Amino acid sequence: MINFTVGPVQSSDAVRAVGSENVPYFRTPEFSAVMKENEALIKKFAKAEDTARVVFLTGSGTASMEASVMNTLTPEDKAIVINGGSFGERFVQICHLHQIPITEIKPEVGHALTAEMLAPYENQGYTAFIVNVHETSTGVHYDMDLISEFCRRNGLFLIVDAISSFLADSFNMKEYGADIMITGSQKALACPPGISVIVLSEKALARVAASQTTCMYLDLKSALSNGERGQTPFTPAVGILLQINARLKAIEASGGVEAETAKIAALAQDFRDKIAQLPFEIVSESMSNAVTPLHPLTASAYDVFVTLKDEYGIWVCPNGGAMSQIIFRVGHIGELTPADNDQLIDALKDMQRRGLI
Amino acid sequence: MINFTVGPVQSSDAVRAVGSENVPYFRTPEFSAVMKENEALIKKFAKAEDTARVVFLTGSGTASMEASVMNTLTPEDKAIVINGGSFGERFVQICHLHQIPITEIKPEVGHALTAEMLAPYENQGYTAFIVNVHETSTGVHYDMDLISEFCRRNGLFLIVDAISSFLADSFNMKEYGADIMITGSQKALACPPGISVIVLSEKALARVAASQTTCMYLDLKSALSNGERGQTPFTPAVGILLQINARLKAIEASGGVEAETAKIAALAQDFRDKIAQLPFEIVSESMSNAVTPLHPLTASAYDVFVTLKDEYGIWVCPNGGAMSQIIFRVGHIGELTPADNDQLIDALKDMQRRGLI
Repeated sequence: MINFTVGPVQSSDAVRAVGSENVPYFRTPEFSAVMKENEALIKKFAKAEDTARVVFLTGSGTASMEASVMNTLTPEDKAIVINGGSFGERFVQICHLHQIPITEIKPEVGHALTAEMLAPYENQGYTAFIVNVHETSTGVHYDMDLISEFCRRNGLFLIVDAISSFLADSFNMKEYGADIMITGSQKALACPPGISVIVLSEKALARVAASQTTCMYLDLKSALSNGERGQTPFTPAVGILLQINARLKAIEASGGVEAETAKIAALAQDFRDKIAQLPFEIVSESMSNAVTPLHPLTASAYDVFVTLKDEYGIWVCPNGGAMSQIIFRVGHIGELTPADNDQLIDALKDMQRRGLI
Repeated sequence: MINFTVGPVQSSDAVRAVGSENVPYFRTPEFSAVMKENEALIKKFAKAEDTARVVFLTGSGTASMEASVMNTLTPEDKAIVINGGSFGERFVQICHLHQIPITEIKPEVGHALTAEMLAPYENQGYTAFIVNVHETSTGVHYDMDLISEFCRRNGLFLIVDAISSFLADSFNMKEYGADIMITGSQKALACPPGISVIVLSEKALARVAASQTTCMYLDLKSALSNGERGQTPFTPAVGILLQINARLKAIEASGGVEAETAKIAALAQDFRDKIAQLPFEIVSESMSNAVTPLHPLTASAYDVFVTLKDEYGIWVCPNGGAMSQIIFRVGHIGELTPADNDQLIDALKDMQRRGLI
């Protein structure tokens, strides 16, 4: 199978080699050193301030989304949530569950966030801003310059879910004034799923220190204090953390985050050039390099997913719920090459010959 | 390195082979079938009732301990917690955090639970009983017959953390009337850490259905409803779930849970026979087959751990906190053989010759 989904994605030989090994015991200085190195490289690639800290939670991206809200916001806050798809909707649900007062801004499916949409919320007493910078469900990448300036003007605490965008799109935590940046192991980090990552600015650390969290497992205070010595409060997914270490060092050795982002951008462009001749419409007006969301003009999106899986050995990423018949997505993260793009294009051309699209 | 810790432990070649592969896309009928098979085999090995359900959480054992308490108990309950070590203490903290009224029973370190300890709590209005059947920190395995009879007489909802005991010690959820049984991927399941497992009886399912949980990530209602179609609400540690599948099928093919437990019991007995000649005292009066807790009579326990790690390529399991100088533990779970026991014994004999123990 060739995997063009948005996660889990294909891993490098080096990452898979780590996966084939026995998992070592981890309450050791040796493992602490690995964790410290992971923290330093994530900070470097996120362009976080020197005083920032990184927490590695054993859990999905949602664990880190919820932990971020629970540990840094309170019912005294008043937050804006950008809800342009199922991951924005998840932040809305998390805030409701934890009684964080919010206002939703709902861009239409496939549409970018604009200055006009933000304008009504200037100087309205908001304290926080929550956004999935890449709304993975619809493939829309929001304008971080616009968001960053709005947050600075209004003094907002800025939580950015960059789960599927980190490494794929350029991001500068310090320049954007982002207080929290979230990512996950199975996106452009191209490791197996099971670890999510939270980068916290000094302002975020102060909020965590002042918080009273009612979940032991998602308590960032204990994660941060254990992290000072390169450890975790509970047994983490040690194997995946070692795979992340191999991957981060490989990125660093091949030119760092800029080179990695450029590679993903080039792969995305290659695919977008090649798909232009086929009966699909790109449905996002502002794309991430991580994924291309496609609407088949002549077939059901879900049928295209099933046929590619069952007859061509190719996974693309189906959409859930109401969009499942309308949109599927092609990912450009993980161990993929232009030759892989060619195989997908050839399969689609064959489906066209067969009258399936 | 040879790994004699209590997790992560050594994995079979088959499990490691799965770890070397790319992780497949998982929102598919193929992965759902794997999850359904995992659920069926866990139920079979736990000897759960037919109507029981299994949830696989991406997280440590603590995630499942906390999820069990949050989703099945309320401040209207009145629970007994057996607190004989750091994992019993963890349940105490979880209950305090979620405002579950509890009474602690605290057996001394290394001591079993007795009928005398339970007697004062008969007919006192308790509704629930929480126990780590194997208190992994001290290597004490509690008497499930005693606990089971007490719970039946008093009509108590019974939560059993069997994280390090499942497969290593015989357990029969139905016979014991246990309502929840918890385990983890990195103990006798001998897979990498990252997945914890909750088996729920019909009574537990009813409690979950009636609960209002204030944590999206640990919400068992959504885990159970997604599980009906073999899926999870959020991206799980797909690779580890596939490794668990390989391992469960291997156990089934080699005689099932009884054969696996007998194998671990024999390995433990082999080690206990061989260690008798060396200057160590076994500090538990009621052991699990999973681990032997040892007090070095002539040296610091932590020094023994460090010397074995740095000079002999062997990991044993150090204890944390106050017990770190007094007790270390030798595990008998994971891919280990009597020949591995010999290597550890030879290393300890060499340390004795060198005057280190």
